[in-house]
Amino acid sequence: MKPGKIDTERLIAGRKPVIEALRAGTAVERVLLLAGVQGQEIADLQALARQARIPVMHMSRQEFDELAPDHATQGVLAVVPSRTFAELEDLLEQSRRRHEQGFLLVLDEIEDPQNLGALVRTAECVGVHGVILPRHHAATVTSAVVKASAGATEHMLIAEVTNIAQTLKHLKDEGYWVVGLDGAGDRPYTAVDMELPVALVVGNEGRGIRRLVKERCDFLVKIPLRGKIGSLNASVAGAVVMYEVLRQREKT
Amino acid sequence: MKPGKIDTERLIAGRKPVIEALRAGTAVERVLLLAGVQGQEIADLQALARQARIPVMHMSRQEFDELAPDHATQGVLAVVPSRTFAELEDLLEQSRRRHEQGFLLVLDEIEDPQNLGALVRTAECVGVHGVILPRHHAATVTSAVVKASAGATEHMLIAEVTNIAQTLKHLKDEGYWVVGLDGAGDRPYTAVDMELPVALVVGNEGRGIRRLVKERCDFLVKIPLRGKIGSLNASVAGAVVMYEVLRQREKT
Repeated sequence: MKPGKIDTERLIAGRKPVIEALRAGTAVERVLLLAGVQGQEIADLQALARQARIPVMHMSRQEFDELAPDHATQGVLAVVPSRTFAELEDLLEQSRRRHEQGFLLVLDEIEDPQNLGALVRTAECVGVHGVILPRHHAATVTSAVVKASAGATEHMLIAEVTNIAQTLKHLKDEGYWVVGLDGAGDRPYTAVDMELPVALVVGNEGRGIRRLVKERCDFLVKIPLRGKIGSLNASVAGAVVMYEVLRQREKT
Repeated sequence: MKPGKIDTERLIAGRKPVIEALRAGTAVERVLLLAGVQGQEIADLQALARQARIPVMHMSRQEFDELAPDHATQGVLAVVPSRTFAELEDLLEQSRRRHEQGFLLVLDEIEDPQNLGALVRTAECVGVHGVILPRHHAATVTSAVVKASAGATEHMLIAEVTNIAQTLKHLKDEGYWVVGLDGAGDRPYTAVDMELPVALVVGNEGRGIRRLVKERCDFLVKIPLRGKIGSLNASVAGAVVMYEVLRQREKT
């Protein structure tokens, strides 16, 4: 196999992310192992690949490093077809299928792959039905994001849309309440009824939510800050509000 | 000035972290600027340094890169004396001084500097009175942690202790309830009364809280997971529970 023939955007790197991808039934083309890697996770991974009839190839250190020079692979890579995004309708269907109030996460131009991965990971843990990303000016689901998400991207419906403001209008027509997270919001995040169908909007790390997107929000909520630092990390802020949604819905 | 004479552990890197350090009145020995950097933040920073009579030195790209080769400096460094940690008693005093119920964060062997920085940042934002770290087997407050905390380490009392279990015993004698975050906890984190003085314990990213530390906890609480991924990131998990403490205390 010739290194360089694989677009790195099509690689999932790391033991846990690859195991999660296999467990989720992701269309993995093949698994690549660095010669000599071993342990329980590698055994699990091989069993999962065998079960799914996915070829496992062993590679020398040199071949492996040429393919993935960033050393964050833990000796494990999976090659996947270019990602196919979900449609918005799939996301709406997901809540109906689970018989739950809708819960969507809208990321308005998150730029840092670590933040995007962390947000998708938390969204998956909290039971969000889908994540909506803008097609432009934002991080998309690269292998770095897959890894930062601990494999959660493999379990989550993710839709890329051209116009976030337009999408929010559509969600409102579908009965969703649009809640934007904004440092200048007029009420604390705990003061909104999240038992209704909710689309939670988290903005860019530096600039926050864009004006036109903000205008589509039914509520702009803030997270209280009691210290001297002016802001929380975007992925932490998103997590705090996502868990408030779950808390309100499960409190009874 | 000879590069290499400065221990990198004694450098704060990045515009925002250095500004925060100056604002907090940190004992900065001097500020180093890459020749040619400019902008509003640089002007603010120079004004803060002038006000505090801290020398500002301009350096060539070569001198600067030799000192801080990691390119995450944004052209700004501050040289600080080796960090002096707070005493446990200072942390206890902090809540008395603020007339608030005690709220401490105990990090049992967090290893990743990004996580440590993120946890201190959130702790500062939520109004935690102090952070307790073990002296060994854990990340300590390096310049990477200062940067990951967005400068929050400069505003937060941090104590390093030899024996976390012993420290928790002392905190209990002082009237604190010790709440450990644990995937196998017997109740959700929302089901504990956090209006009492609380010491929240977050464990190692992989291993969680050590057994002897766990035995000192009055409550072991878990964060509900509704997806397929088995765990939240440690800094996200800590943030979710810290904000639940604030929510309970401010809900009236």
